[in-house]
Amino acid sequence: MALRVGLLGFGTVGSSFAEVLATSEAEVRITRIFNRDVERKKSHAKAKFVPAETIWTSDATEVVTADDVDVVVEVIGGLDPIEGWLQAALQAGKHVVTANKQLIAYRGSELIALAAEKGVQLRYNAAVAGGVPVIPGIVSGLSGDRITRISGILNGTCNFILSAMESGAEYADVLKKAQSLGYAEANPSADVDGFDARAKLCVLARLALRAELNPDEVPAQTISSVSAIDFAYAKELGCTVRQISRAERDGDGAVRARVGPMLVPKEMPIAWSHDTQNMVVTSGLFGGDVVFSGHGAGGHPTAVAVMSDVFTLTSGSGQVRFVAAKIEVNGDVRAPHYLRFIVKDKPGIVASIAGVLAEHDINIDALLQHRGHSPENLPFVVTTEPCLRSQLESAVAAMTRLDFMLEPPLVMQMLTSDDHPTD
Amino acid sequence: MALRVGLLGFGTVGSSFAEVLATSEAEVRITRIFNRDVERKKSHAKAKFVPAETIWTSDATEVVTADDVDVVVEVIGGLDPIEGWLQAALQAGKHVVTANKQLIAYRGSELIALAAEKGVQLRYNAAVAGGVPVIPGIVSGLSGDRITRISGILNGTCNFILSAMESGAEYADVLKKAQSLGYAEANPSADVDGFDARAKLCVLARLALRAELNPDEVPAQTISSVSAIDFAYAKELGCTVRQISRAERDGDGAVRARVGPMLVPKEMPIAWSHDTQNMVVTSGLFGGDVVFSGHGAGGHPTAVAVMSDVFTLTSGSGQVRFVAAKIEVNGDVRAPHYLRFIVKDKPGIVASIAGVLAEHDINIDALLQHRGHSPENLPFVVTTEPCLRSQLESAVAAMTRLDFMLEPPLVMQMLTSDDHPTD
Repeated sequence: MALRVGLLGFGTVGSSFAEVLATSEAEVRITRIFNRDVERKKSHAKAKFVPAETIWTSDATEVVTADDVDVVVEVIGGLDPIEGWLQAALQAGKHVVTANKQLIAYRGSELIALAAEKGVQLRYNAAVAGGVPVIPGIVSGLSGDRITRISGILNGTCNFILSAMESGAEYADVLKKAQSLGYAEANPSADVDGFDARAKLCVLARLALRAELNPDEVPAQTISSVSAIDFAYAKELGCTVRQISRAERDGDGAVRARVGPMLVPKEMPIAWSHDTQNMVVTSGLFGGDVVFSGHGAGGHPTAVAVMSDVFTLTSGSGQVRFVAAKIEVNGDVRAPHYLRFIVKDKPGIVASIAGVLAEHDINIDALLQHRGHSPENLPFVVTTEPCLRSQLESAVAAMTRLDFMLEPPLVMQMLTSDDHPTD
Repeated sequence: MALRVGLLGFGTVGSSFAEVLATSEAEVRITRIFNRDVERKKSHAKAKFVPAETIWTSDATEVVTADDVDVVVEVIGGLDPIEGWLQAALQAGKHVVTANKQLIAYRGSELIALAAEKGVQLRYNAAVAGGVPVIPGIVSGLSGDRITRISGILNGTCNFILSAMESGAEYADVLKKAQSLGYAEANPSADVDGFDARAKLCVLARLALRAELNPDEVPAQTISSVSAIDFAYAKELGCTVRQISRAERDGDGAVRARVGPMLVPKEMPIAWSHDTQNMVVTSGLFGGDVVFSGHGAGGHPTAVAVMSDVFTLTSGSGQVRFVAAKIEVNGDVRAPHYLRFIVKDKPGIVASIAGVLAEHDINIDALLQHRGHSPENLPFVVTTEPCLRSQLESAVAAMTRLDFMLEPPLVMQMLTSDDHPTD
């Protein structure tokens, strides 16, 4: 008998799921669809992929506990009211397949426990990196390794913006373009300020590092302070700039994690991703680095991940369960850093800055200054030897008070090819 | 109760498996180990990872049907006698985990059917790309897509040789180096002539394209005819040379497949792999291109793949089964090609070659000739517009008879960024 799907949401992903399912040979049937505005959705171009006998409803409770539903597929997003609906579905003995990263990041452990208690499955391959099978790769292919670090490009919007800025464009202009292409929201904060990426990072940390992290504890730095100048300096350093999400097991079992713009050496795989692509690099004690890359978002790629979860359910396959422990996040990463200043030029600036760094026990690695900028508005860059972020933040706080400093310095972590999981 | 493993083979992979298992928290125990020379293996550096109560034997039948074995892990390789042993294990109701690409490529369908009949699992994530979870990614993460093509760097030895040749070294010298480093066998034929890669390609084709291919039908071209000159010309064309394994669904449901050295544009992900790394790119109708990359061979990465399969068994997870159909291979790919000639220079050579190509209805795209070579031994290169390999082979057969041709021309397919799955 065909597996009966109750679909919550008929937007971009939901309608693409109906399309992908219609062209598949899987024994799967959509019996019910919830959407707030049923009439509008019934005239959606992809409604033709929905069987005539499917029941449409604007009442989600008519889907999550219905007798003719074996698996609830949720592609709406957000915590409330979704959490309650999916709890009800699991309580009623339905499998749940969801693309909801916020829900899994913030409420995953409770939902996973409930699913286990009820003997049903909670699958969420689509919650991270859309069509890139990072979660199946980690769960089924790398469970035998001990993964010590995950680094990723987990937000396609940021990757689009930063890879476009490589050719010299300014942030504000590229953001506008991203918005007009539908890659960025009118309020882009969730993407550019790192909240979306850190939720995904926490979903991965549970599986890869067996660590339950609170997303709110992961420091997220905005990419909106990165400017075209930084790409020019990054290039001189053999690097580019990407929004990187990174979590690593510390020597003593803690997890260090951060999300934000970082300098990435051009020869590292993580610098390869362009446009809206996603990439994840896992580092294992035995298997070394494994790279996953592809389309992280969009209706079709996300629908592929959802459909693959549903297909796995039709095969009667069980679910690999990991034990993850609650672990506090330490955002104080030790690494070399990039510092960019905009100053009003006058004698003694380098001496002042070098003085503050020395007071904070931070060694300068290089000092870069390109010609041709106005002394009234002069950008220059200092790179440091590895130091703790906290050391740097207090140095920067002290520097911001210097009279020649026209704006707060931009601080970015620098990744290095010989980066080690712990230090 | 712990899952009890009977291990066949205590070489590089088998001993690494014991090590990985010893450091894991999985409920898994090695109860029996088969190896021909038990006494020698017991003094192996990694024998310390084997529990004292484990039974060592030089008789495989004492492992494959033993009562205290739940899963047989095979890391020896080859068809005979392994096939019989694993049949016996499956017959006796044991799960089987194997790293044996030849066995799965040539006898996979029979063994898969036998496992299904007996209600046990046959897992072989380690058979392709070692520690890179390509098989789990395809099986659990991309089953919802319709994959139309797989392209891969599936042989680490060839990738080591060809990426080393990028800096100007000749094939014979790099091969020697690879042999001294243990990356290439004394008889390197299985690697450099493409037999290893095409077995892996057929294992992937079954899962990704749902196509049972006979590996012997996949044309395999040796990399041993590639010389330093070809890298110089490839560079001029914005390319490098890699051993590529490629299979794609044709418009009419047939599969076109080939293994051999190909020109790869530097901006394509498949050009990123260096040293002994493996890479696989799947192209899906809905999800687009997905890239997997990492360490394809070696004791630890392969042991991670084996251990992950064993770990999945401990979780009580079932197995996703695909239906694959027997399909004939068509090696006659339509693509642009690179032709490199070594000639004794005289007037009219270009005209003769162009004439033969025209007779065979092949259009020339570019003609490249670097300065500084002796006219007695002159290399030059022609690239063609897309044509069938068969057209080109007959043209080349005609050219080989030309009096100025000092050796048979080298023919390599050229990949293009806008490559489409069918043509």
